[in-house]
Amino acid sequence: MDKAPEEPTKQVLAPGKGNQAPKPKKSAQPPEVVEAQEKRRKMEMLLQSRFFYTAAYEIYGGVKGLYDYGPPGSAINANLLNLWREWFILEESMQQIQTSSLTPEIVFQASGHCAKFEDKMVRDEVTGDCHRADHLLEEIIEDILNKTPDLTPEQKTELENDKARADDFSLAELAEKLRKYNAKAPDTGNAITDPFPFNLMFSTQIGPTGKYKGYLRPETAQGMFVNFNRLLEYNGGKLPFAAAQIGPAYRNEIAPRSGLLRVREFTLAEIEHFVNPAEKNHDKFYTIKDVVLPLFGKASQLGDKQILHIKCEDAVAQGIINNQTLCYFMARSYLFLMRAGANPEKVRFRQHLDNEMAHYAIGCWDAEMHTTYGWIEVAGHADRSCYDLSVHATWAKQSHSAFVQFPDGPRDVELLVAEPNKGALGKAYKTDAKKVFEHFENIKDNQDELKCIQDKLNAGSVDICGLSLTPDLLKFKTIKKKVTGQNILPGVIEPSFGIGRIIYCLLEHAFYVRPDPPNTKPADAGKRVVLALKPIIAPVCCSILPLLNKEVLLEHSKAIDILLKKNRITTKLDTTAIAVGRRYARTDELGIPFGITIDYEGVEDSEHKPLPADQLSVTLRERDSTEQVRVKFSELVPLILALLHEETTWAAVKEKYPAVTRPEGDEQ
Amino acid sequence: MDKAPEEPTKQVLAPGKGNQAPKPKKSAQPPEVVEAQEKRRKMEMLLQSRFFYTAAYEIYGGVKGLYDYGPPGSAINANLLNLWREWFILEESMQQIQTSSLTPEIVFQASGHCAKFEDKMVRDEVTGDCHRADHLLEEIIEDILNKTPDLTPEQKTELENDKARADDFSLAELAEKLRKYNAKAPDTGNAITDPFPFNLMFSTQIGPTGKYKGYLRPETAQGMFVNFNRLLEYNGGKLPFAAAQIGPAYRNEIAPRSGLLRVREFTLAEIEHFVNPAEKNHDKFYTIKDVVLPLFGKASQLGDKQILHIKCEDAVAQGIINNQTLCYFMARSYLFLMRAGANPEKVRFRQHLDNEMAHYAIGCWDAEMHTTYGWIEVAGHADRSCYDLSVHATWAKQSHSAFVQFPDGPRDVELLVAEPNKGALGKAYKTDAKKVFEHFENIKDNQDELKCIQDKLNAGSVDICGLSLTPDLLKFKTIKKKVTGQNILPGVIEPSFGIGRIIYCLLEHAFYVRPDPPNTKPADAGKRVVLALKPIIAPVCCSILPLLNKEVLLEHSKAIDILLKKNRITTKLDTTAIAVGRRYARTDELGIPFGITIDYEGVEDSEHKPLPADQLSVTLRERDSTEQVRVKFSELVPLILALLHEETTWAAVKEKYPAVTRPEGDEQ
Repeated sequence: MDKAPEEPTKQVLAPGKGNQAPKPKKSAQPPEVVEAQEKRRKMEMLLQSRFFYTAAYEIYGGVKGLYDYGPPGSAINANLLNLWREWFILEESMQQIQTSSLTPEIVFQASGHCAKFEDKMVRDEVTGDCHRADHLLEEIIEDILNKTPDLTPEQKTELENDKARADDFSLAELAEKLRKYNAKAPDTGNAITDPFPFNLMFSTQIGPTGKYKGYLRPETAQGMFVNFNRLLEYNGGKLPFAAAQIGPAYRNEIAPRSGLLRVREFTLAEIEHFVNPAEKNHDKFYTIKDVVLPLFGKASQLGDKQILHIKCEDAVAQGIINNQTLCYFMARSYLFLMRAGANPEKVRFRQHLDNEMAHYAIGCWDAEMHTTYGWIEVAGHADRSCYDLSVHATWAKQSHSAFVQFPDGPRDVELLVAEPNKGALGKAYKTDAKKVFEHFENIKDNQDELKCIQDKLNAGSVDICGLSLTPDLLKFKTIKKKVTGQNILPGVIEPSFGIGRIIYCLLEHAFYVRPDPPNTKPADAGKRVVLALKPIIAPVCCSILPLLNKEVLLEHSKAIDILLKKNRITTKLDTTAIAVGRRYARTDELGIPFGITIDYEGVEDSEHKPLPADQLSVTLRERDSTEQVRVKFSELVPLILALLHEETTWAAVKEKYPAVTRPEGDEQ
Repeated sequence: MDKAPEEPTKQVLAPGKGNQAPKPKKSAQPPEVVEAQEKRRKMEMLLQSRFFYTAAYEIYGGVKGLYDYGPPGSAINANLLNLWREWFILEESMQQIQTSSLTPEIVFQASGHCAKFEDKMVRDEVTGDCHRADHLLEEIIEDILNKTPDLTPEQKTELENDKARADDFSLAELAEKLRKYNAKAPDTGNAITDPFPFNLMFSTQIGPTGKYKGYLRPETAQGMFVNFNRLLEYNGGKLPFAAAQIGPAYRNEIAPRSGLLRVREFTLAEIEHFVNPAEKNHDKFYTIKDVVLPLFGKASQLGDKQILHIKCEDAVAQGIINNQTLCYFMARSYLFLMRAGANPEKVRFRQHLDNEMAHYAIGCWDAEMHTTYGWIEVAGHADRSCYDLSVHATWAKQSHSAFVQFPDGPRDVELLVAEPNKGALGKAYKTDAKKVFEHFENIKDNQDELKCIQDKLNAGSVDICGLSLTPDLLKFKTIKKKVTGQNILPGVIEPSFGIGRIIYCLLEHAFYVRPDPPNTKPADAGKRVVLALKPIIAPVCCSILPLLNKEVLLEHSKAIDILLKKNRITTKLDTTAIAVGRRYARTDELGIPFGITIDYEGVEDSEHKPLPADQLSVTLRERDSTEQVRVKFSELVPLILALLHEETTWAAVKEKYPAVTRPEGDEQ
């Protein structure tokens, strides 16, 4: 691929049975790291060989940071997004919107992305290869820590501090540290440039003229901010309300790695909850007040590293979480992750340290999931105050205010009113005077601006629309008025979910290797891999397996396949003529939670005569216990729907239906 | 917006009640055109004022060809995509995949998009504004036709022919026609350049080096072709199977117009059905053989313009539709459009004329829906033969073949085998000879290529890997072998749906104005607009309206809201204290098919004592008939689910439940 000197990934796997994920490098890693890497290697081997995902444009060598989801990955993605939409948008009556990814430059000038959405980069001085400066520093320090056995405690602490702060250093600090540790380019060992900023947005030209710059959005949030006025109107002018958007986002990462966790194109599901900044209680807080959240607060991160398990109502009462609304969304996110199948032991909320937060932010907590890569941020929860609406109001010259009633009834207020002297202004500025009148008409409700103009006027003169006004041309008066409320600039609380990251973490939480049965051949040991995905997330809900490749069983299998599909239960009909045990193993690998087997016992009597319709039955197998029960045709659909929606449990099913003990081996 | 001289749209609407879609220009239009424009104007006013959609980045002046969906539009989009996924992917067990929009250049070099995915453009010689050359020609001719009353029949025919062929002319022909009709730039009347090609793909740089060109995909199909080998493996190596993808696509239209119908960013839902080209029967054809399709074939387009209504089985038998598989998908698409709410009178399948089709295509039929813009293509159905897999096989140097068994059992075949003379080659070319051995090893299964080499050799000599081989260095022999099948390059049949276009057309088909009741004030006349969307597509399934703003009614309303949501029925709880008739009108505007009203009669006895739980009831209103029936709480969920999934009809509901006659006016 001549034109692509640096972008193709090096980890492309050829399709086919020979697939092997690369073995981890040998090193002096601690055993838990080695174990984690071995687990990841096995899982990635499964995920790639069963086409959960693959490198994008693999036949052309792949492209770093771009991945394609195959059939099971796409189904998980669709299921997770459906669950998210039901959980947040429909359950909370949010206003879903769908805005364009192509975005004109001015939007990101306003939001600050043009100026600041960047990482620090160094180049290999010989090859021109690009590296992320902070990652390079981290790797170099990690290497020193691993390879220098005789470090003093002070040296070790200094190294660890520098490593921890790598992504927080300024350009100058980074440059200094890289020099201090004598950083060279990885792989080549060549000298590197000083670090410099690289903007992570993909740019393009919109329209045919080549004069209109646009970007691919790096997040979906701006599309909601710029539609605030329409959304507010749709909500009848009332606060609070939430907008939500699910859609693609794009970031031109300098050197993507960590597989699905750092990619250049990904799906976000974001919520912007608009509130009166003076009123951040949430009217459904009572529904989650007893939910216990695992919090990793600022103090704890800098101190004892302990997770605090605390009820939502206590976390807010004690000021640990800033307000009810922020806490409400954290609890809803936590419950969502549980519903999707996250391991509760491997989820925490990490508070942003002061130096991580934007100056305007009030509180930020990342939901993190633990994987073999360490703790991974999967959802942010940020109280962003009024920042976003305020910058777009300024750049677009539009009001973004909402009228809120005073909670304690109407008030008498003093209002400042500007009184331009029409006659004198007309004389002084002729037709230009009209601009002044219009300006004061436009800002008549903006008491802050009027006060500012009054102050300047009192100091001598003030400039309005390029015209100098003095006290003979402009006066102010104060009037008293009974008003029922005021216009305020809403604040925004933003829960933001990285869908691909959640999928990857759920897969890691779900992956395990079943213990080998006795007498397993060494060549077959450790191969019984399973994805214990929740039914609502699993790529397919139900496999349908005729026990033997016989006409009568095949026919009933097809009928059940049609019946389940009609009831919106996803199925995989596997009629290949291999042993049912091996077919169960294949569905375990895909994470399919339930397996229906059609056997002679369920469709024929002992004399091989067809059973009457009301006596037809199948066996239903649960993936993780591998237990089976016998269920009548007529009860199958409601039973599977109840399991899918967690309205019943497998334990309850076992109590109600007769057990079946069919060995799972390859004995067929 | 200083940097955006030409891109902002001019049709941005301010939010708020003052919204008015622009009135159509007065002209000598025929009455049906005027009526269509008036209908469109009313509908667009509704769609924009209720935030079905709006111009993207409206507060910054908008961007041509980019639109945002608001809450009702987003919900319709989500519902339509869910239906599509169920209808095609789940029902047909297709392999869904999700591939990246960012695409390296080589992919579109292979597919031909870099060379040919372009429109012809002219520039205004003074302003530099860009116009689509074919559209400009059409407009000029239209103008001449309208403004020149004394055309001879010959002149008129010539003009009409030129107009019809505008998008089919070569660059040179277009240039000649534009000169012939003395074309000037619209709006300015300035001179224009000759037409030149403009590639419609958005380009960007992938990665930080600036050396790796990428494009945003203009369709999702290539992502499926490049994953063919993995998809085939996932399907157990067997043909036929279908891959499907739903996702964004991007086209940098020169001068987008027609609102949602021609945009720069849109959602496609595409299917690639891979088949053995020798075996295009479809094993589910029997399920649709009696479906009657409205066909607008080639001959008819050039002749009598009549639609042929014909059964699928006859259309294939008579050779009107090329094969069963193509016809199967056309029928499934037709039934899908009906299920989604298309008006059957306004759907047809238009066959591509010979000059519209790519040279490799075998048959192409566009599903079209009729709107006030005329007939609009909403889904293509193309038998693309082996073209796509073949070009990627060549560019990526990968086999894309599938093994298919001979239908009539194993065959004795003669195989050509190349026998390079190792000794002589080694002598002649030393270590380079190895390349020749490797080459023949690689192509040993490619009988066509071997035959070609043999022919050249027989003619004297042949060049292999830059080395000249003569009969003393290379021989061929023929062997006989029993083989069970052969490797073939699959063909592909591609149904491809433009989701945004379908949404727009469904909205037009659903929009109507209810007749005014007697004694309507003139100011209120013609305002009772309704969107008769199917329940499965409507943005919300059920509105919930307490008849009066009273505590007991509000409480029951909230309980019903929770009950319905729990059963995955979407709701809109409207507790505003306005007359229920006006609230019904609001839900009609949003296309909500069912309205539940909670009244005293359903929750209290005549002495205002609460009714026992098993006697609680509500009224259920159907949007289009405005009829109401009384239904018990306990029967509500299954009844609405049955209506939603079309397992019952409103007529059947009316027979079963007592009618309620509550006037719908503003009398409350």
